[in-house]
Amino acid sequence: MQIKYDSFSTAYKQPFGAVCRKTRLRFHLQVGAQAPVTAVALCIVQDGQWTHEQVVAMHVTAPNRYTASFSPTVSGLYFYYFRVATAMDTVYYGCRNGGLGGVGVQYADRQQVQMYQLTVLKSHDPLPEWYRHGVGYQIFVDRFCNGNPDGHVNAPKPNSFLYGHLTDRPMYIRNADHQVLRWDFYGGNLRGITEKLPYLQALGVTILYLTPIFKAASNHRYDTGDFMKIDPVLGTLADFDQLVTALHRAGMHLILDGVFDHVGVDSRYFNQAGHYDTIGAAQSRTSPYYPWFTFKSYPNDYESWWGVQDLPTVDKTNASYRQFIYGGTDSVIDYWTRRGVDGWRLDVADELPDDFIAGIRQTLDHYPDRVLIGEVWEDASHKIAYGKRRHYLEGGGLQAVMNYPLRQLIINVLSGSLTPADWWGQLMTLKENYPRSTFRFNFNNLGSHDTPRILTMLQNDRQRLRLAFQLLLTLPGVPCLYYGDEAGMTGGKDPDNRAFFPWWHVDAGLLRFVTDWIHWRRQHPWLTTAAFRPFYLGTYGIGYCYWQADHCVLIAVNVSATAHSVTAADLHLAGLPANVATSVQQHLVAQSLTVNQCKIVENFT
Amino acid sequence: MQIKYDSFSTAYKQPFGAVCRKTRLRFHLQVGAQAPVTAVALCIVQDGQWTHEQVVAMHVTAPNRYTASFSPTVSGLYFYYFRVATAMDTVYYGCRNGGLGGVGVQYADRQQVQMYQLTVLKSHDPLPEWYRHGVGYQIFVDRFCNGNPDGHVNAPKPNSFLYGHLTDRPMYIRNADHQVLRWDFYGGNLRGITEKLPYLQALGVTILYLTPIFKAASNHRYDTGDFMKIDPVLGTLADFDQLVTALHRAGMHLILDGVFDHVGVDSRYFNQAGHYDTIGAAQSRTSPYYPWFTFKSYPNDYESWWGVQDLPTVDKTNASYRQFIYGGTDSVIDYWTRRGVDGWRLDVADELPDDFIAGIRQTLDHYPDRVLIGEVWEDASHKIAYGKRRHYLEGGGLQAVMNYPLRQLIINVLSGSLTPADWWGQLMTLKENYPRSTFRFNFNNLGSHDTPRILTMLQNDRQRLRLAFQLLLTLPGVPCLYYGDEAGMTGGKDPDNRAFFPWWHVDAGLLRFVTDWIHWRRQHPWLTTAAFRPFYLGTYGIGYCYWQADHCVLIAVNVSATAHSVTAADLHLAGLPANVATSVQQHLVAQSLTVNQCKIVENFT
Repeated sequence: MQIKYDSFSTAYKQPFGAVCRKTRLRFHLQVGAQAPVTAVALCIVQDGQWTHEQVVAMHVTAPNRYTASFSPTVSGLYFYYFRVATAMDTVYYGCRNGGLGGVGVQYADRQQVQMYQLTVLKSHDPLPEWYRHGVGYQIFVDRFCNGNPDGHVNAPKPNSFLYGHLTDRPMYIRNADHQVLRWDFYGGNLRGITEKLPYLQALGVTILYLTPIFKAASNHRYDTGDFMKIDPVLGTLADFDQLVTALHRAGMHLILDGVFDHVGVDSRYFNQAGHYDTIGAAQSRTSPYYPWFTFKSYPNDYESWWGVQDLPTVDKTNASYRQFIYGGTDSVIDYWTRRGVDGWRLDVADELPDDFIAGIRQTLDHYPDRVLIGEVWEDASHKIAYGKRRHYLEGGGLQAVMNYPLRQLIINVLSGSLTPADWWGQLMTLKENYPRSTFRFNFNNLGSHDTPRILTMLQNDRQRLRLAFQLLLTLPGVPCLYYGDEAGMTGGKDPDNRAFFPWWHVDAGLLRFVTDWIHWRRQHPWLTTAAFRPFYLGTYGIGYCYWQADHCVLIAVNVSATAHSVTAADLHLAGLPANVATSVQQHLVAQSLTVNQCKIVENFT
Repeated sequence: MQIKYDSFSTAYKQPFGAVCRKTRLRFHLQVGAQAPVTAVALCIVQDGQWTHEQVVAMHVTAPNRYTASFSPTVSGLYFYYFRVATAMDTVYYGCRNGGLGGVGVQYADRQQVQMYQLTVLKSHDPLPEWYRHGVGYQIFVDRFCNGNPDGHVNAPKPNSFLYGHLTDRPMYIRNADHQVLRWDFYGGNLRGITEKLPYLQALGVTILYLTPIFKAASNHRYDTGDFMKIDPVLGTLADFDQLVTALHRAGMHLILDGVFDHVGVDSRYFNQAGHYDTIGAAQSRTSPYYPWFTFKSYPNDYESWWGVQDLPTVDKTNASYRQFIYGGTDSVIDYWTRRGVDGWRLDVADELPDDFIAGIRQTLDHYPDRVLIGEVWEDASHKIAYGKRRHYLEGGGLQAVMNYPLRQLIINVLSGSLTPADWWGQLMTLKENYPRSTFRFNFNNLGSHDTPRILTMLQNDRQRLRLAFQLLLTLPGVPCLYYGDEAGMTGGKDPDNRAFFPWWHVDAGLLRFVTDWIHWRRQHPWLTTAAFRPFYLGTYGIGYCYWQADHCVLIAVNVSATAHSVTAADLHLAGLPANVATSVQQHLVAQSLTVNQCKIVENFT
């Protein structure tokens, strides 16, 4: 039997990708069988309702073409496959292994069928203009710039170490059990960021994403000590206000890191060591914070993030905690947002219940043009965390996530561990699974404080680094640079990826290159609304087109280790409209792509 | 058989204690036997010449009293015992177990006899006046005072950590194999010492002993990198000169730490990491420093101090190394001594050959009034190091050693682990074994950078701490305080004993107490030439007397945990002249000594 379906193609499914509930979808199946076809059906099931599979008969609408319509009633995920029965046998058609969309495969046994994903939204979430057209820059604050003229470190913490030189490589000071004995600081601070706003402006950055800045014991501050206080090591509330004023004046926007799953053991809330003047949960069961935590045996055995005793987990269903984080006008979210924060990046979103995230979003939506981003490491459209399907992006929750899957696609295809064809299939699957606004405005990165640096991932190949930046800055999504990557910083896994910004040793050529491409991006704001399709070139190249009215851009990259002269057979342009495909052919066939070449053609039709 | 001999008493041996060679000694033995005595002999043997025991017949000089004379011909040690033969049997008389002098015991078998020690000197070594009457103060320079007005640390080393606060407890930053990964610095420096000279003067200190100050990688600088350079973390050569000028102007003197057994792996001489601009021994066999080191397998396997690869051992027999350390007018010893250093404390003296130490001493003796002290942890009069008897103190070598045995006597008797009687026996043995000038001018301490602090050793008992200071400041020897002990610092073993001086938190009462006793000592310069004898009070008290012409001092301390009323039977005053003993009796008997009381009576006869 010959069956064809391609979820990426509107010849088979309309509309493409994620839809709002109640949208009428049309599915088309091409069937060529020797025996007479007796029944064709779309089998579709709402996520989790596995015993309530709906069988929608498909009817012939053209020779060998079967069609059905379906309107999802609820938001969330649906999964589907097709069943084709002939007089001789019954076959099934589902997606390829790994949940990839696009062309699928036939299965002989129902129980082996892998289903296509259909993402259904409550609503399309609008995103503010500044975010949609922004270029982000993530700063690990202790490691960026010390704004004190004499370079002294503000208010070092008791029993902390300061690096002797900003050029020193970072390290943890740990015991044999890997527990941190003392925290290490370079002394970057908020004034340092304010001081470097001209640098960031020249680079073209418009969004600053700062890792946590609230008072905490560690240098990363994911162990919050006091949500309402700027860490004195970073400066004062006045320094914060000055930074906000200055960056807004520069047309920039600020995203803070919201760490709401857990707090520090050394916090106003838990207060195990009694450093805070409140009665903490670890000090007394009468503490107002006592109900926030889950003690297995009071006070020393309690639930903590991944078993790290330094980070007691907060019960996110607790009403008083919710009130504190996002409930009132003096809640954490409200206070800081009112003070000028333009967006939040929610740390370990997997640990936060959907309605907790929705609560934050509602508070945030009291203010115009704010954005809520989550830390999710995988394709967030179908993430299952702790046995529960998450609904991050279906409306009213997160508006974007840190796009680590895209980072992986870029690194893998540039380092040869992913074929161009697979790169294409995986990128198309992201495009299909995510709400359009998420795919187009996801918070992209090449690395963060939680990954090795991009130059190190690319084995210090500076040519490939440039390609990576070109991809980051031309692919869909809001690009976010990790501080110093543009200066040529290297660094393996944590803490090596958190070295101090080498102001004295910037790779000027690279910086100019990155600056140029950021500016290229900012000169092409229409890309965010244009149609987008990736393609690939045989086993050696990847590419994509944007097109819209009279604008178009073609980008093609030779990711292989040898030069290639493009042949017509190399081109895999599925999904490009005919005129665009023809023009791509004209510009690429018989052209030579040298190693690492990124060919860009603008307005090519 | 009844035999009596007492090496502490001039009724049995004249003169007391160590003598110069060719001195005529007289030994007297009291023998009471039932059978007729057939032969009494002094059996004496030169150290190491065990097969050449000399048997000196002793003759009756009074009833039951046998006498012999002996003149040692060479310097070094002699060991002796007595043999008494009667018609019935032969018995031996040697010293008590542990090499203690004083009254001995009878042995039935020759092979069990423990021999008395007789120390024989080449010459009496003079010691400069400033040293004899001085009060020392040891400074671990990184931890004393930062003399920069803004508190910045001078020239931090690459890949070093600075403490966030001077109040932080010190710690090593080590890996699981205990290797130091980064060195930790507080930032004390030479200017800081200069700044604190008024403090030290007020305290009564007259001698500063500084742990190493030459350029090195670590915070302790026992891993010398460049013998000719002040460590930039500590300041400049000008800072050094300024300190020397200022302290001399204040009537103080300076002792430096001479670390000549080994150098740092990261040094101008070994230069393993290539940080220095010389060709080091680890870099090439053509290095001028190559012959200084002993490679088992070039270049990575080499001899090092106690196997610590960080500290390659130098071959002290190497002529060019000797020339460098003390040979010429530009040698290390000569250069710094000419620059104003008044004395040297030789680190790990056990590792330095006697003739190497003698070479240093000869160079030092070109300058007037210098002093050479060694780090030896035991009774240095009979130390065997690496299978060889050492001759530190017999003339022309060391003039004093760090008196750790005295420290142990003070701590043990104050903490109850040593009886007053044993305290007395051990102190008397030191007095007997050491040259008089060593015993009277040894470099005493209650602790150093290599021991837990005295207050911690005494379980934080501040009353006993005061007693310890009183003992240190009234016993024979040149007292040397370990920085901060006078301020009430606590600290366990290294690195806890190396915390920063708590200028903001000085125990003012203790400081006043220590200051008073230093001044008491300085107001009694005649003590250094007076006769001295310890005594003890039953099981609860220790004491000692100094007397000379019309001066005398009696010091008695109740070291027990209860008050005691002194009875005549408690007094063990052996060795005190009759008039002194009578006076002691008059002042102590029927007196009550409360717990921790230190009773001092001046001019009591």
